[in-house]
Amino acid sequence: MEYKNLDRTESLKKLQDIPRVDIKKVLSAKRINEMQIPLGGELVYSYAALPVDNVILKTLQELSDEQQLTEKYKSLLCGEVMNTGEKRMVLHHLTRGRICSDRGNDAINEKESFYKGEMEKIYTFAEKIRRGEIKGSTGKKFKTAVQIGIGGSDLGPRAMYIALKNYAERKESLLMNAKFISNVDPDDAAEVMESIDVETTLFILVSKSGTTQETLTNRKLVLELMKRENIPGLDPGKHMIAVTSATSPLASSNDYLASFFIDDYIGGRYSSTSAVGGTVLTLAFGKEIFSEFLSGAHEADVSALEPDILKNASLLDALAGVYMRNILGFPSTAILPYSQALSRFPAHLQQLDMESNGKSVNRFGENITYRTGPVVFGEPGTNGQHSFYQLLHQGTDIIPLQFIGFSSSQTGIDTDWEGSTSQTKLKANLAAQIIAFAKGRENKEGAKNFKGGRPSSLIFGEKLTPKALGALLAHFENKVMFQGLIWNINSFDQEGVQLGKILTKELLSGKTEDPELKEYASLLGN
Amino acid sequence: MEYKNLDRTESLKKLQDIPRVDIKKVLSAKRINEMQIPLGGELVYSYAALPVDNVILKTLQELSDEQQLTEKYKSLLCGEVMNTGEKRMVLHHLTRGRICSDRGNDAINEKESFYKGEMEKIYTFAEKIRRGEIKGSTGKKFKTAVQIGIGGSDLGPRAMYIALKNYAERKESLLMNAKFISNVDPDDAAEVMESIDVETTLFILVSKSGTTQETLTNRKLVLELMKRENIPGLDPGKHMIAVTSATSPLASSNDYLASFFIDDYIGGRYSSTSAVGGTVLTLAFGKEIFSEFLSGAHEADVSALEPDILKNASLLDALAGVYMRNILGFPSTAILPYSQALSRFPAHLQQLDMESNGKSVNRFGENITYRTGPVVFGEPGTNGQHSFYQLLHQGTDIIPLQFIGFSSSQTGIDTDWEGSTSQTKLKANLAAQIIAFAKGRENKEGAKNFKGGRPSSLIFGEKLTPKALGALLAHFENKVMFQGLIWNINSFDQEGVQLGKILTKELLSGKTEDPELKEYASLLGN
Repeated sequence: MEYKNLDRTESLKKLQDIPRVDIKKVLSAKRINEMQIPLGGELVYSYAALPVDNVILKTLQELSDEQQLTEKYKSLLCGEVMNTGEKRMVLHHLTRGRICSDRGNDAINEKESFYKGEMEKIYTFAEKIRRGEIKGSTGKKFKTAVQIGIGGSDLGPRAMYIALKNYAERKESLLMNAKFISNVDPDDAAEVMESIDVETTLFILVSKSGTTQETLTNRKLVLELMKRENIPGLDPGKHMIAVTSATSPLASSNDYLASFFIDDYIGGRYSSTSAVGGTVLTLAFGKEIFSEFLSGAHEADVSALEPDILKNASLLDALAGVYMRNILGFPSTAILPYSQALSRFPAHLQQLDMESNGKSVNRFGENITYRTGPVVFGEPGTNGQHSFYQLLHQGTDIIPLQFIGFSSSQTGIDTDWEGSTSQTKLKANLAAQIIAFAKGRENKEGAKNFKGGRPSSLIFGEKLTPKALGALLAHFENKVMFQGLIWNINSFDQEGVQLGKILTKELLSGKTEDPELKEYASLLGN
Repeated sequence: MEYKNLDRTESLKKLQDIPRVDIKKVLSAKRINEMQIPLGGELVYSYAALPVDNVILKTLQELSDEQQLTEKYKSLLCGEVMNTGEKRMVLHHLTRGRICSDRGNDAINEKESFYKGEMEKIYTFAEKIRRGEIKGSTGKKFKTAVQIGIGGSDLGPRAMYIALKNYAERKESLLMNAKFISNVDPDDAAEVMESIDVETTLFILVSKSGTTQETLTNRKLVLELMKRENIPGLDPGKHMIAVTSATSPLASSNDYLASFFIDDYIGGRYSSTSAVGGTVLTLAFGKEIFSEFLSGAHEADVSALEPDILKNASLLDALAGVYMRNILGFPSTAILPYSQALSRFPAHLQQLDMESNGKSVNRFGENITYRTGPVVFGEPGTNGQHSFYQLLHQGTDIIPLQFIGFSSSQTGIDTDWEGSTSQTKLKANLAAQIIAFAKGRENKEGAKNFKGGRPSSLIFGEKLTPKALGALLAHFENKVMFQGLIWNINSFDQEGVQLGKILTKELLSGKTEDPELKEYASLLGN
């Protein structure tokens, strides 16, 4: 396997010389009909409104082959050390199903049974909670789960919970409500604590290292606030479980009702399908829904093996993104789900993408000179239409758009107004936006002129089911992975978060000598 | 007054030739100490970590003078038609206090008494609700307010509500809980309806035009869901009030318990301080807190009159932003409040900024060739540190950062962990991040190297009070206004949202002839 920088590929040079495609001119019903790829979970990736033609696609295929993208993915699946800096395997795919076919691979065999085993323990535990076999310390049944975690222990699990809450409720499978405490701002925990009944609440402390400052501080605050309620018989330790590494300080503590384990081969932002997401999601929705979610993710993982880019949605999504970033020079990407259930999905993808690929050195630590990960942002449609879409339509930068939409709503609750339902209106808006962005509309009044030529892709399906959500999540994880491989960077470390931690620690311990740091701290009253 | 494009100014040319400033080299305790401007509401704007020096600041002052920024602001305040395309005055400042000193100005006199009068009506109505003089149709006291609105009728009011909820609760001034329905996705309304008791809920229908598709559809859905509950004696019309234009179809309807009016001179994204935000915020928190919020905004508005850019925070913030956008070429801006209460403030600023300044024509409708509004995104710290900060620190693009922080939390609830409180940790993290971004830290291991030189500003104060929140809101409104004036664009229209609406309407009425639009609709099952 050869790992080389993007600017050393032959195909990048070729791409620079191929004439650009004007979406406005090429978009046709035939193209929309043909340019579709199933991505798993009964979802389809439509790329008709991207600025690509057969010549560009052929060259993107060459780029994929030249950078050996699916081969590298396969070796990742079988345990190659892809997190080069931290010298770790990258095994989040294994949490939703095994793909590596080498049955003699001891590392993979061991990890497979470890991840499965922890999930089995969680399923058993959750079932006991559901049946009331494990109760709160004052004898009441647990009704609410509160996850205490930050970053990957918060954004992904929270986005997934919000995405499936209405669905589960409709299926009468909403077993527990979930809430989340993440910020070290004490007002975050205070507000959540104000809204719950601690006697019926189970806290899930999630920290892989067991040393996350925010999470441990919130643990302490939550325990104190529980005590301050002075409820006779309340034993806070009987209301808290831990999800952590087997080697962390938390793991050896007896302060928890139960502990479930993860390890260093599941990065935080890739951990929604591991015990990090699996605990709260199983408590909230039960084993069946969580298993469907995993099976959707696994389908997307399998579909990402295909070397033909016209049959591999996450691979093509990755290549098209790099084309738009490095050849066309677009600096950001918007995630626009037409589904309120996906209201926090863009925030999760923001972490997933920007933390994975916001790097300036290659996987060997050498400086690179081309652009890597873009800024990623988004809000659900139609809300965004009444907000930042003005800039997307008529601003001076072109921003590639990733639309997501479904035929049916999750709840099925609806009404008819002026001849159409809410869901029909939602979908009509989505279709209309793609066309408005791509084709524009001329108007001699400048402010009303739409130039068009603004590219987008669309992921669509029948309904946002657990399976569809799993596939959607894995699609973007794999897209980000492929982009990292194209750029030849390590998408699995996050060294960029360390310096802030070090300086904070120095400041809090009174050991800093930095006069500017002290001055800023003093402005803020520290 | 002369309105000329940015690229026709002398000062822009000068700026291009002035040597760039490396923050890493110039940042000093002295600089931090000196480079501060009070902005109103007891908040201070710190610009020590921006890449400016005396020469650049002097030239930005020339740019401000050349573009007559404060003079134009003054003429806006006195009713000049600044929304050129729609031929409207821009009067949101008037909702929080009069600045125009021309007492013979009939238009301003009339509008001042109109806005004040509507707020007085709202105060009286809210007081009756609070006292239980107006009750729900089944005789129960109203406990929950649900705002139905989208865009400016949702993002600003929602962000302000979230920002003040803990504060009001602490002051025992949380009179009603508020919830919000915005998306035409029916699952949005379904979820809110699931969470409330309709007998004790007052709905606030907010649509300036009275024709917003999403809002009218949600009105219908909410009314139907109320009926479906089959509660004896429940009269949905007695649970809904309207905030709209006096000329809208809603205004003439008898379907509402009460109606309050706004007009065309308050743009949606500038309407948090008008009846649009005032109704829900007064119902939730009472007149006193809402008045403090207005007084903070007014203070910031007054501070924006100052022609000296070193004494005018919103003006300097605007000029520095343009310098970083048009001279240094940075394509986006991150909003990073270290306050969980401001969790949706970045989403509001995203609309405020991107919808106001995402334009490609000047105020006369002529094409411009320089960059205008950047992409704006953000999440609260410390959450963001565990998410997208990786890219901010080590990505290949430089992204200017706008930090916000407070000495004290809103609730005062806290704990001590490892020698410091949560709030102290929160502030230490904020100070540490500014330094890490500005100064970086060399490391011969590439992945651990921080180049620094990443610019930021900081708005800080003692606590996020209603007054501070008002000032913060107005600061950014005025910043965006000044940037629009520098770019010579109309920051007060949003023609870019129209084409999508037209195409949606054509599709829903079956009148579209566009084959691609039909094809996309068909993919989505329409």
